[in-house]
Amino acid sequence: MSLIEEINEQPQVLSRLLSTQFDAIAAIADQIKQWDPNFVFVAARGTSDNAGRYANYLFGAHNQLPLALATPSLFTYYHRPPKLKQALVMGISQSGKSPDIVSVLEEGRRQGCKTMAITNAVQSPLADQADFVIDIMAGPEKAVAATKSYTAELMVIAMLSVCLAGDEQRKAELARVPEWVAKTLELDGYIENFAQRYRYMEQCVVLGRGYNYSTAFEWSLKMKELTYVVAEPYSSADFRHGPIAMVEQGFPVLAVAPNGEVFDTLKELLVHLRKDMQAELVVISDRKDALELAHVPVELPAGIPEWLTPLVSIIPAQLFAFHLTKVKGFDTETPRSIRKVTETH
Amino acid sequence: MSLIEEINEQPQVLSRLLSTQFDAIAAIADQIKQWDPNFVFVAARGTSDNAGRYANYLFGAHNQLPLALATPSLFTYYHRPPKLKQALVMGISQSGKSPDIVSVLEEGRRQGCKTMAITNAVQSPLADQADFVIDIMAGPEKAVAATKSYTAELMVIAMLSVCLAGDEQRKAELARVPEWVAKTLELDGYIENFAQRYRYMEQCVVLGRGYNYSTAFEWSLKMKELTYVVAEPYSSADFRHGPIAMVEQGFPVLAVAPNGEVFDTLKELLVHLRKDMQAELVVISDRKDALELAHVPVELPAGIPEWLTPLVSIIPAQLFAFHLTKVKGFDTETPRSIRKVTETH
Repeated sequence: MSLIEEINEQPQVLSRLLSTQFDAIAAIADQIKQWDPNFVFVAARGTSDNAGRYANYLFGAHNQLPLALATPSLFTYYHRPPKLKQALVMGISQSGKSPDIVSVLEEGRRQGCKTMAITNAVQSPLADQADFVIDIMAGPEKAVAATKSYTAELMVIAMLSVCLAGDEQRKAELARVPEWVAKTLELDGYIENFAQRYRYMEQCVVLGRGYNYSTAFEWSLKMKELTYVVAEPYSSADFRHGPIAMVEQGFPVLAVAPNGEVFDTLKELLVHLRKDMQAELVVISDRKDALELAHVPVELPAGIPEWLTPLVSIIPAQLFAFHLTKVKGFDTETPRSIRKVTETH
Repeated sequence: MSLIEEINEQPQVLSRLLSTQFDAIAAIADQIKQWDPNFVFVAARGTSDNAGRYANYLFGAHNQLPLALATPSLFTYYHRPPKLKQALVMGISQSGKSPDIVSVLEEGRRQGCKTMAITNAVQSPLADQADFVIDIMAGPEKAVAATKSYTAELMVIAMLSVCLAGDEQRKAELARVPEWVAKTLELDGYIENFAQRYRYMEQCVVLGRGYNYSTAFEWSLKMKELTYVVAEPYSSADFRHGPIAMVEQGFPVLAVAPNGEVFDTLKELLVHLRKDMQAELVVISDRKDALELAHVPVELPAGIPEWLTPLVSIIPAQLFAFHLTKVKGFDTETPRSIRKVTETH
């Protein structure tokens, strides 16, 4: 299956998870609630690390669970892991194979923590170390750049959050995600067209905040993997603390700015970038006042609750990276220098 | 005082901390040990966030304390902070003024956690919310790009780690840092000269791992603030998971690779980048076999224990950013678009 086919398969992948995995995830959530972890300790790399960034906001906001991103080298090279007192140790990996991620779960077990694997490979070294295994059921992912496994990881994280909170309203909202994703995929022709404009772009920044901090990181990673553009992700707050100095007239800024609690602060920055600094803006949003600021507006379906926007806003970002790769004449299936499974220690 | 004067002042700033603050920090460490936190929850932005990255490795490796970087928007915009069960909530900020960082400490207090401020402003909103205040005693920092406040923050974090562990050997090692920093500052003329080579560099990546993950981030931030070069920091492991695809012949890679537990894995990547991918390499190291791989080798003093290398390896990085800024004809004291105190929410 090709990259564009995997991108287009996402509504089916997400529907499948919703229709088959709620009971299994609810059962795991019950055990976690009983165990009552102090915090979640996440080990992941690349795209899966960006799914971890979503979990950081979602588990914090809706489950009051703090989340720490693991520093795997403390486990593998330094052999000095921290004391994980009553932590839920969570590994996220499509392949379930990266040795450093597996090491973090092994150590979590040794310390008597509960361990969880979120993976596309339920028969894998990672799953072997997990008390709880959640299957993202994305089917084989052949393209080197991960797309459907990312949204499947987000969906599983969202389902787990809903089950932990026992929140029926959010469960109902979740059911609409495949439809929003399908609707957003209809932007394909529009995005194919405007990708031309960035034929000679060599660098850019990608901004998001709150829930969509994850989207900024994942969009940026797709840009680097596929188009070889140096694309650096930021929260709008971190961006103001120094990196904004890079921006000069025409500097390309990609922004993920759907409606929600952080919208006003992100919009304020976009106004400043456009009006005062003459930056070039691509904006993914469902808000007219943000889209109007953009040289290239990318409109999301209306009415998506903020906590679910990362599952939808990444879709045009994936399509943009795909089409820009073709425009630049690069290989969409097998980017240079990287492989599907990267085994780091 | 100008940026280069502040850079050159660092041996004095670090000596002053060592000679005057050990007792105060030891007293704080005693109280923290009694309280026995489950984890450290750090709120910081920009340069201070990079000091937090150092703490992540140091507290993990030497104090078995896991560390989570806070997501301030959960506290400010979402008003849904996580439950911080028995966390030490630590704010790091030169000015002590950023409202989002202050909010995280306020919430920590409300939840009955112990709070700590590491700051250059002991009379500040941040210090007002802290049970423990550690003064970094850097003196007024006038240049917008932070240099001496960064190494002072690292020093305070290192002193706290030593006091928490009651480790006399590491305490003795710490005493040599000002001398290593002074020695490294002698590279100034060499760095001024080779900075010419990067007059037209527009983008680069900065690699580090383990303790020097912090250095990669801080070097990259100085590059962006001062030289306006798009410089993206990575751990060598994360870099392999996708972004390495960006590298083509001549692509500039700045690397921080001192001797230590992660040296071999970083060196393996540098060999690959140089031999197989024809990348351009600037390497900061005390190891001949790493320096030999570089187009521009930057040699550190021999014998620095790995856990202290971040306090020294950032020095040539600061000098490089300073001189490249002059070579490019930009303002070293007041970069465009940013101010000394950035108040984000």
